[in-house]
Amino acid sequence: MKQATFYHAGCPVCVEAEQTIAGALDPNRYQVEVVHLGSEKSRLAEAEAAGVKSVPALVLDGTALHINHGADLSALK
Amino acid sequence: MKQATFYHAGCPVCVEAEQTIAGALDPNRYQVEVVHLGSEKSRLAEAEAAGVKSVPALVLDGTALHINHGADLSALK
Repeated sequence: MKQATFYHAGCPVCVEAEQTIAGALDPNRYQVEVVHLGSEKSRLAEAEAAGVKSVPALVLDGTALHINHGADLSALK
Repeated sequence: MKQATFYHAGCPVCVEAEQTIAGALDPNRYQVEVVHLGSEKSRLAEAEAAGVKSVPALVLDGTALHINHGADLSALK
């Protein structure tokens, strides 16, 4: 089982992306963790290190996938 | 089985997104069609109608998800 991490900030664009993409991943291969960077600011550094520049973003197999655009990471600091 | 459509234009950003996200969808629920808009220009109108503004993009459950950014659709016309 691989870990996929969905980073968001509660914005409408984030919620829409979460409901579509996070729920569409293969549950037999991926365990999806959802992280709200607005309320879990301690995880901003981890997201940045994974290459996340804006939310919503999905980190999958080591690749940061920015899905549409809700807010830049810098706006959450 | 639902249809998911991955639109791309052969760019490196597109290929990376395709290899990660298109292959991570639940194969029991989604059938993924991959469309190269550079070589299948006749499908540009369909992509636009689905809300696609840039590639790579994944249309899933009626929602256009722009994944990172390779090229604007206008650059492919």
